Amino acid sequence: MDHEKLAQRLRTLHAINVTPFREDRVVDYDLLERNIEFLVANGLGVIVPYGNTGEFYALSVEEAQAVTRFVVERVDGRTAVLAGIGYDLGTAREMALAAQKADADAVMVHQPVHPYLMTEGLIRYYTGIARSVEIGVVLYVRHEAIDREVLSRVADIENVLAIKYAINDLPHFADLVQCVEASVVWVCGTAEMWAPFFFAAGAEGFTSGLVNIAPELSLTMLDGLRRGDSEAVRTVWRHVAPIEKLRAKNHNGNNVSVIKEGMNLAGLPAGLVREPLGELDEADRQELIQILRSWGKFA
Amino acid sequence: MDHEKLAQRLRTLHAINVTPFREDRVVDYDLLERNIEFLVANGLGVIVPYGNTGEFYALSVEEAQAVTRFVVERVDGRTAVLAGIGYDLGTAREMALAAQKADADAVMVHQPVHPYLMTEGLIRYYTGIARSVEIGVVLYVRHEAIDREVLSRVADIENVLAIKYAINDLPHFADLVQCVEASVVWVCGTAEMWAPFFFAAGAEGFTSGLVNIAPELSLTMLDGLRRGDSEAVRTVWRHVAPIEKLRAKNHNGNNVSVIKEGMNLAGLPAGLVREPLGELDEADRQELIQILRSWGKFA
Repeated sequence: MDHEKLAQRLRTLHAINVTPFREDRVVDYDLLERNIEFLVANGLGVIVPYGNTGEFYALSVEEAQAVTRFVVERVDGRTAVLAGIGYDLGTAREMALAAQKADADAVMVHQPVHPYLMTEGLIRYYTGIARSVEIGVVLYVRHEAIDREVLSRVADIENVLAIKYAINDLPHFADLVQCVEASVVWVCGTAEMWAPFFFAAGAEGFTSGLVNIAPELSLTMLDGLRRGDSEAVRTVWRHVAPIEKLRAKNHNGNNVSVIKEGMNLAGLPAGLVREPLGELDEADRQELIQILRSWGKFA
Repeated sequence: MDHEKLAQRLRTLHAINVTPFREDRVVDYDLLERNIEFLVANGLGVIVPYGNTGEFYALSVEEAQAVTRFVVERVDGRTAVLAGIGYDLGTAREMALAAQKADADAVMVHQPVHPYLMTEGLIRYYTGIARSVEIGVVLYVRHEAIDREVLSRVADIENVLAIKYAINDLPHFADLVQCVEASVVWVCGTAEMWAPFFFAAGAEGFTSGLVNIAPELSLTMLDGLRRGDSEAVRTVWRHVAPIEKLRAKNHNGNNVSVIKEGMNLAGLPAGLVREPLGELDEADRQELIQILRSWGKFA
């Protein structure tokens, strides 16, 4: 897809779908297909197979590549598909090339897992990835070492289209949006609880794991943000706060398990999580049931 | 090696050697061999190829496995070798089996890169790795979600021999040492600046990247800690503080670059770093030169 057209399409909700696992912890492609069809049927425009809610770090590189091929094929042009890539530069380049070959619209570069980050090295890392493919590149930023200098230089690369920012420092984010001169789409990487504040600072899209259960809520929030209807936005915000708080428990350990268990309870089967995640404890599960019941999603 | 005998050998300094890279960023095996021979010649007893100072996350899985084979072969039983492994459970198991096949003494399981961690899933993750091999297993812990419950359960596994703890919360660490009943060697994972305090809480070993430049300092500290000679320990501590502070700059971004540049300046060539690391800026380089000069390691 043409970069300008794709960039325009990224100004929206980014659905981070789940990666369902069977009892033997193998990827469950039947359930994955149902999850993808649910998102497409509900009008989502961007699908990100294995973001963090899709358990990227529980998949091997080969599994991630197989999931990319499957999702691109099933989506068949009905949404944009951003394939997650990451790890060392060599592996990230291989994954980017595989995503391009699979016909993904763009790659989403996960936060580098290296514990030490330097300006010059980060620029070389991102540049090395972006220059290896022709499809779009989206950065997923979760560490403040990826600063204005890094982002200015990398956003200048022609196929770098969007920055998904997941550090909840709003003045810093607002500063980046104003100071990075290259044309790039800014996306809130911390979902519904933070989207209104990121939009106030210049974001034009936000990510969501909640869309796997209640896409109508996230889409209503997006619509309110676009129309500047702050009362509508606040209504959704209050509505989704309980489940997002439950996901944030245990240093965010509950993040994916709440979504998958919520899907299972709501009749949208998502299978199991993989290590190092586990099932919800009974108290959290009961709280989740109450939330879904209040939404009319669990009888 | 017999587990009990190996555990005894882990009560010492763990040398985290560097992974030298050539100008084209390929692993420089000639320099790696020199680095290993330097550590062996200086009396180090445990070598960890590609801990974080060895740029584990800048290597592909295949490269890490090749480095393991090389280091085990060159060391040839003169020290214990702990091979770093990590990533998703499937990949970690493969890496553990490859390390066993290469005749490493143990694997060191890097902190899981998954951003979400849960008690039950962590136990299954570590158990799945430890049960896949017969050689020793050392955990490298950098996140508080890996708590007393997780560590108690995992330390109970016969071949889990040591826990390298890298969260500088001393009361919490002291509590773990006292509450985890299984026999396990506790190792300070945050090197010389923290080792004295971890030893006061029950650690019997500590990791070091500084050994690549000045092993005599780290060994003097170890000796002081073992003899309870706090004046000797403090003398070394004051001596190494400036270089460790320089490594801690830029959110620890300087960590590896200071060691490699220091080695290059001290006539112990270590080549380049890989992305997302970069070279030191000139001010930091000048500061490093002053430190090395004060140690008599740079004319």
